[in-house]
Amino acid sequence: MQRPIFLYKADPVRGAEWASWFALKAPQLEFRQWPLEDGHQRVRYLAAWQPPTDLSIFPKLDLIFSVGAGIDQFDFSTLPPALPVLRMVEPGIIGGMVEYATLAVLSIHREWLAYRDQQRAGAWKALRVRPAGSRRIGVLGLGVLAQAVLAQLRTLSFPCAAWSASQHVIDGIDCYAGSDALPTFLGRTDILICLLPLTESTRAILDRRLFAALPRGAALINCGRGGHLVQADLLAALDCGQLSTAVLDVCEPEPLPAGDPLWHHPQVMLTPHIASMTQPETAVDVVLENIRRHLAGEALNGVVERNRGY
Amino acid sequence: MQRPIFLYKADPVRGAEWASWFALKAPQLEFRQWPLEDGHQRVRYLAAWQPPTDLSIFPKLDLIFSVGAGIDQFDFSTLPPALPVLRMVEPGIIGGMVEYATLAVLSIHREWLAYRDQQRAGAWKALRVRPAGSRRIGVLGLGVLAQAVLAQLRTLSFPCAAWSASQHVIDGIDCYAGSDALPTFLGRTDILICLLPLTESTRAILDRRLFAALPRGAALINCGRGGHLVQADLLAALDCGQLSTAVLDVCEPEPLPAGDPLWHHPQVMLTPHIASMTQPETAVDVVLENIRRHLAGEALNGVVERNRGY
Repeated sequence: MQRPIFLYKADPVRGAEWASWFALKAPQLEFRQWPLEDGHQRVRYLAAWQPPTDLSIFPKLDLIFSVGAGIDQFDFSTLPPALPVLRMVEPGIIGGMVEYATLAVLSIHREWLAYRDQQRAGAWKALRVRPAGSRRIGVLGLGVLAQAVLAQLRTLSFPCAAWSASQHVIDGIDCYAGSDALPTFLGRTDILICLLPLTESTRAILDRRLFAALPRGAALINCGRGGHLVQADLLAALDCGQLSTAVLDVCEPEPLPAGDPLWHHPQVMLTPHIASMTQPETAVDVVLENIRRHLAGEALNGVVERNRGY
Repeated sequence: MQRPIFLYKADPVRGAEWASWFALKAPQLEFRQWPLEDGHQRVRYLAAWQPPTDLSIFPKLDLIFSVGAGIDQFDFSTLPPALPVLRMVEPGIIGGMVEYATLAVLSIHREWLAYRDQQRAGAWKALRVRPAGSRRIGVLGLGVLAQAVLAQLRTLSFPCAAWSASQHVIDGIDCYAGSDALPTFLGRTDILICLLPLTESTRAILDRRLFAALPRGAALINCGRGGHLVQADLLAALDCGQLSTAVLDVCEPEPLPAGDPLWHHPQVMLTPHIASMTQPETAVDVVLENIRRHLAGEALNGVVERNRGY
């Protein structure tokens, strides 16, 4: 009897690493990369950044895995309604985001890029350090990534708060919930980190009104999606001094088009969507655990609720 | 009866902040800044970056406080042998060093400056991320600052080791001691952080031989003193690829002279001795606690052992 197929449809170089880990950890499955030439009847599992438009070619598909933390790039209208879609939540993604957010916060807090510019200009000049205890961090979102980022930033003595759609209670974090609480949350936030999922209600949330509710000179870190940000409003807020700095890991579209003013804006640090990348080994562990749960009839981890969009 | 004088001889702007905290917390003392025009007989305490050469002008001096963590800038030959000299170990200094070392490590680990250069060049290109678990941190020194830095870096999943003159046992840290163990320690270190005191035995320790014992492509962070580093050997190690990057907060002399190649070296990040600065409020607390201990005949905190030089 032939083995069930696990089909991978994303970056092929990383796919080759997935293949090695599958060979080691799950010899009962046949790991294949997209495009598939034969065996469509045996495809039971699909891991994808974007699933193929027509899934009817895989009549026995049981589970779809996102290879990234977000699933806003999925077009749910093309997916069978009953098919479970699973977010990628694995230690590698979480660790990467904690590293990036911590680096971005400390880079702002300790003026790393200003010192870089001073060095290039041959200037030896100490800039005033604010104690961490007076630099208030606010995180938009309270999912697994946001909670891990907040836990790390607390260990550096930054006062931490978070805002999300629904009320949470987290030790040591001031939790704000719902749109009524958003202005109060923003008013106490010196460095704002966006870690929201991209949905209809969060698209373009980082706009002129939101920036105006922050203290003058606040900084923005966007580790969500480019669609969260109204780029023209960001540029206006930077140019008038309402915002001091922005660190952007995402934009819309990606790659950022040549000639876009963000490339050369002195107050903008731009990285090419690298804050957090799925690590093949730990991702494969998480995927295999969900397959085991599926076969055993147990509850799955990270199931996307399609009505809320994440 | 006139109050005893606490004399401050360092940066006058920061001294003004010390004055405010003394007025609030220690009204029984008269806080004065150098130079002193009268009241020499009443000077019981001196806080200084560098003490005055002739201390016989203060016949009733009881204690000398360093305003910085290091005391290598003190000329002990000019100080009365029995006079206690106290290092500055206060939460502000410790927190600042933890922030700086974490920022420098993450900046190297996540290629922050390479991304900055890519941004300037208009390039959207992801660089490969190494998992934190495979990036080995090694700290030279195991004083209060080094221990705090290591504790923080452990929370980011970096494998951590330390080397010091005498044997220590610290949970979660591989501790190496003595010159025989130095090559083994260096051989397992991808990012080396110098947090040693500057003494006769540590001067010029960061030299060609030490760099050669690191794995090829290792990085250096110097948060110790400029005197620890043989700058010509660093430049040679960077140019031949033995070292990939250096983050330097200190140099010799300071400020770095105009025209020095470190200013414009693409693999060197230079900051003007700002890794850690004494925070006036918490520094005053630590100083007042030692004064209380002195008056009560209790053991003092942070006494410098002159024979070992720190």
